Amino acid sequence: MMIVIMKTDSTIKETSNVIRKIESLGFQPHLSKGEKKTIIGLVGNGKKVDPETFLVMPGVENVVPILHPFKLAGREFKAESSVISVNGTSIGAREVVVMAGPCSVENRDQIHQAAEAVAKAGARILRGGAFKPRTSPYSFQGLGEQGLKFLRQAADASGLAVVTEVMSPQLVELVGEYSDILQIGARNMQNYTLLEAVGKTSKPVLLKRGLMSTIEELLMSAEYILSNGNPNVILCERGIRSFEKYTRNTLDIAAVPIVKKLSHLPIIVDPSHATGKRDLINAMSRCAIAAGADGLIIEVHPKPEEALSDGAQSLLPGDFEMLMVDIGKVAEAVGRRIC
Amino acid sequence: MMIVIMKTDSTIKETSNVIRKIESLGFQPHLSKGEKKTIIGLVGNGKKVDPETFLVMPGVENVVPILHPFKLAGREFKAESSVISVNGTSIGAREVVVMAGPCSVENRDQIHQAAEAVAKAGARILRGGAFKPRTSPYSFQGLGEQGLKFLRQAADASGLAVVTEVMSPQLVELVGEYSDILQIGARNMQNYTLLEAVGKTSKPVLLKRGLMSTIEELLMSAEYILSNGNPNVILCERGIRSFEKYTRNTLDIAAVPIVKKLSHLPIIVDPSHATGKRDLINAMSRCAIAAGADGLIIEVHPKPEEALSDGAQSLLPGDFEMLMVDIGKVAEAVGRRIC
Amino acid sequence: MMIVIMKTDSTIKETSNVIRKIESLGFQPHLSKGEKKTIIGLVGNGKKVDPETFLVMPGVENVVPILHPFKLAGREFKAESSVISVNGTSIGAREVVVMAGPCSVENRDQIHQAAEAVAKAGARILRGGAFKPRTSPYSFQGLGEQGLKFLRQAADASGLAVVTEVMSPQLVELVGEYSDILQIGARNMQNYTLLEAVGKTSKPVLLKRGLMSTIEELLMSAEYILSNGNPNVILCERGIRSFEKYTRNTLDIAAVPIVKKLSHLPIIVDPSHATGKRDLINAMSRCAIAAGADGLIIEVHPKPEEALSDGAQSLLPGDFEMLMVDIGKVAEAVGRRIC
Amino acid sequence: MMIVIMKTDSTIKETSNVIRKIESLGFQPHLSKGEKKTIIGLVGNGKKVDPETFLVMPGVENVVPILHPFKLAGREFKAESSVISVNGTSIGAREVVVMAGPCSVENRDQIHQAAEAVAKAGARILRGGAFKPRTSPYSFQGLGEQGLKFLRQAADASGLAVVTEVMSPQLVELVGEYSDILQIGARNMQNYTLLEAVGKTSKPVLLKRGLMSTIEELLMSAEYILSNGNPNVILCERGIRSFEKYTRNTLDIAAVPIVKKLSHLPIIVDPSHATGKRDLINAMSRCAIAAGADGLIIEVHPKPEEALSDGAQSLLPGDFEMLMVDIGKVAEAVGRRIC
Repeated sequence: MMIVIMKTDSTIKETSNVIRKIESLGFQPHLSKGEKKTIIGLVGNGKKVDPETFLVMPGVENVVPILHPFKLAGREFKAESSVISVNGTSIGAREVVVMAGPCSVENRDQIHQAAEAVAKAGARILRGGAFKPRTSPYSFQGLGEQGLKFLRQAADASGLAVVTEVMSPQLVELVGEYSDILQIGARNMQNYTLLEAVGKTSKPVLLKRGLMSTIEELLMSAEYILSNGNPNVILCERGIRSFEKYTRNTLDIAAVPIVKKLSHLPIIVDPSHATGKRDLINAMSRCAIAAGADGLIIEVHPKPEEALSDGAQSLLPGDFEMLMVDIGKVAEAVGRRIC
Repeated sequence: MMIVIMKTDSTIKETSNVIRKIESLGFQPHLSKGEKKTIIGLVGNGKKVDPETFLVMPGVENVVPILHPFKLAGREFKAESSVISVNGTSIGAREVVVMAGPCSVENRDQIHQAAEAVAKAGARILRGGAFKPRTSPYSFQGLGEQGLKFLRQAADASGLAVVTEVMSPQLVELVGEYSDILQIGARNMQNYTLLEAVGKTSKPVLLKRGLMSTIEELLMSAEYILSNGNPNVILCERGIRSFEKYTRNTLDIAAVPIVKKLSHLPIIVDPSHATGKRDLINAMSRCAIAAGADGLIIEVHPKPEEALSDGAQSLLPGDFEMLMVDIGKVAEAVGRRIC
Repeated sequence: MMIVIMKTDSTIKETSNVIRKIESLGFQPHLSKGEKKTIIGLVGNGKKVDPETFLVMPGVENVVPILHPFKLAGREFKAESSVISVNGTSIGAREVVVMAGPCSVENRDQIHQAAEAVAKAGARILRGGAFKPRTSPYSFQGLGEQGLKFLRQAADASGLAVVTEVMSPQLVELVGEYSDILQIGARNMQNYTLLEAVGKTSKPVLLKRGLMSTIEELLMSAEYILSNGNPNVILCERGIRSFEKYTRNTLDIAAVPIVKKLSHLPIIVDPSHATGKRDLINAMSRCAIAAGADGLIIEVHPKPEEALSDGAQSLLPGDFEMLMVDIGKVAEAVGRRIC
Repeated sequence: MMIVIMKTDSTIKETSNVIRKIESLGFQPHLSKGEKKTIIGLVGNGKKVDPETFLVMPGVENVVPILHPFKLAGREFKAESSVISVNGTSIGAREVVVMAGPCSVENRDQIHQAAEAVAKAGARILRGGAFKPRTSPYSFQGLGEQGLKFLRQAADASGLAVVTEVMSPQLVELVGEYSDILQIGARNMQNYTLLEAVGKTSKPVLLKRGLMSTIEELLMSAEYILSNGNPNVILCERGIRSFEKYTRNTLDIAAVPIVKKLSHLPIIVDPSHATGKRDLINAMSRCAIAAGADGLIIEVHPKPEEALSDGAQSLLPGDFEMLMVDIGKVAEAVGRRIC
């Protein structure tokens, strides 16, 4: 359903053409002639039609869609919230789930120490990158499959599930063998070949919002995964780009209640990438829980000063323990609890 | 004229209330019921109505205005382009007008040298600040009335008109005594008390776009001046804020043809503030003329390394001479000429 | 203190000139010659120097300031947090203060009903605009002095303090007679004449962040007020502009802990303007408290559907009561309480 | 080479640790102690070091890199401009090259008509998508290999070269068989697996700037291609996201002279995607040439009203002919000519 707005100086012929086009597509046209403008509503037959169809016709000034462009991701399609189960942990239910670990898997010891520390503090899922998207081709690119092995072993030893990034369609199978959740990074949010590839698996997918993507575009990218058959999508707000440069990105915290309203999918928050600064993580984690997030993903490194990437935004194990206590109180204040 | 979109789960009673409201305001309601949504068009009686009126009613999801919110500033109100005359120079006609001079008036010699240099190269209007809006209270704030006197004398000695900034309503009269164009700075674009004050004079006003303001908001600020009785408004695109940090601001060059299409008012470009970098001024000036700008305002300083403000973006007189030659060729290529 | 970076192809003579300039200003130059670049540190004598001084010299590529540009607003100037007292209510202390009321004062009844409702729910300060900055000259501009009188009477009747906006220097005295806190709106954050005017009073000032102003610029605007002699500045995060259009603005919640770290001044959050949507206010209020805000300012209207402005983002009294309960729990979770 | 800035309250021990780290990496430390801050310069040994190395050390406040992070893409690596040869057409030389054609290849007739029209008007390279990245999974996704065949045949029949998008590493070989330039779309600018794949070919690559990417990030993505062995990279400015919503994106025209200054690689402009509006294309094309662009890529469709995508921003063949005449004049004005 949409509305076509005709130009002030459009001709009767142009308006008739639009009406005929609407009818030819099986919709009912509803004409409203104002003093200055003529508008024509399309009354639907359940089918979708591209606004472009009318936007290109002579005499048309603008087309206003009335319905959201996503379908499977929307609350109108599925009213009750989706709960996604990962190794016995439910994401999207009353419990708030914490994923934590280092930016990159660097070696066996580092990831084992990290896993132990975050498990002890109450995290349920271990994060750590084996394939790393880096701005510079000269930066550390990850340990690859070796990293995946270390990650899996460390998680198993501490009773954790695994979330790790997959960067290309060819690697979906490999990464899937070692992990419980496939992460799509912010830079790949609109890498449609990759979205289709993970959509063809049944693994839970953690889909991070692009740095310059709207909430609607995030839901449309989820739609790619859902429409390929995989219903297990977890969204993640991780900061967007703005003019403010004190933080690496600007945490768009309103995205949390907005996604909860528009969609049935769970949404978590990544305060580490949203701010890029260790001393803001605790406050941003508390605020994410207060806003209604279903979980957090946080960078924790046993020795941040030796990290090969993102050390400056990684928490020390001790800070992370404190954070878990602090968010526990906030979770309780909003009627939830850390699982 | 506007469209009211009802929520998917709105009740018949809510829809009836909206319809009744529309009728009570003297508009005709046009109802279109779709499979999922109901929309109601308002067909006008020439009066304006605030979208808020409906947005706050129960059951309403959104309101889409169909007409632009400005009136006196729009082409629909006045089809032919406005030409504003300043001391015998026409702004908005076939000629492209160049305003140039230092950021601040610093002393008698500096402004006289600057005036002489820019006049010799072909500028028609001398710029220079006597009252300066500075981010820091500890930065040079301008010479005040003494600066206005120096500026007027320098302009007169070189046969130039004067444009200079006015920062508060109390100073409108004083600044008007010494200048031919009153400049409203970007930070004051929505200082409505100031807009009303200059709207009550008949002096030409140079209204700079705010760093954070949309093109529509720029035209609405012009509307404040026009609706107070002063038709002589010149708009100025001077860069907006974006995430890109290589330049001080991002020159939104598309604003030039957009303003020319929506409004009859002339628009000039300020490449100095848009980029903040001396070595980009020439290219950005050429591109402004190619895009259809009616003029330029450029910072030129006889000795930038001694400037009290904005030295890094000020051209040397020699560079400015070259720029005038370069833009002359581009002006010719688009059927105009530097006046 | 700052660092001057020379261009790769700068000459020895250019470097010597920079060194001589540094010495002439009473600083010590510290030269570091790298393989490709030469950099020169300025070691301070306590005085401030404008980066421009060097940026304009031949051979200089860039200048990097090392110290923050604000002084009186910074924690380095005053380590302990400032607590501002308004009619017996402390802002910036352990208590979280809530300011609430309608966008505009519309008539005696409306503001009395609003005052009663917000006082009953626990607010301490009544908000309401008598002079309104509106994008359109055709929108309701406020009741002026009559509105101030209604506001004061309503506040007194319910035992509340008053915060209201002042839009121009000439009105500072008048608005000050009727209010306890002078509000500087977002559009006027860099209206320096107005900042100086309120800086010369001793009234507490609520300074709202501009829609496109950085946190540093917000603190520099506070510096204008402080350096004019008024130490009673309360900052307010109210959303910034970004590409996301689902909300009116993007609440930059990280600004709260950042301001608390850089400055001793209290900071509150305005969730109503930050989102523009009634159904997001509760979540954003909870999240502001969790992030460490010292207070909230919220639009509440007894009958939003009859509001002359901002009805769509105004809470109903009942919603506001619930909000007060909800934020009370979050305040407790972070070791504070609603006062 | 970089500068480490210590916190105001850092200890002597922390400073010593940083100095020892600098020495252990084979750099020379240069210490400058100011009244409030201590800074330490690293004087280089030609090697690169990640700012993170120091950012994570206790007592460090900030790290300021002095050199650009790109190498092969920079003018310091290669001073003279790169000229890339495509089927006898030089890109990056005095001639301005125009690429034109429809958004998508839709059928044999459409692309043949488009090719003929753009060739006749003076374009040298035919554009047209066979694999289309679309925000919605329900939109037309392109004809795939069949589209590539139609595109090649149409180009050959009119004596044009071919540029078309490749969306995933697996398709690089296939797309390379039919095209002369491999296009990397804006959404894939940081799809590093894809950048590496095209970097391993010797085909010219058209790399579009991401909507959310800085100029430095664009050059770093070029660096991925260059460092994999392919020197034939053409950059493309196609608009970035800002708060302004009148246009689809904001054309960052300053990127043209900035890239020309920092890099030896050619840069072209895409006015169609930058604005999304047909009636702005001519002005934006003129302005791109005036700013120094090496070429343009423009959407032209024989029948925009029947286009399956981007019809609203496609020019009609007649408009395109006029545009070619108009930009010819501007090219001449800046000392170039359309090839």
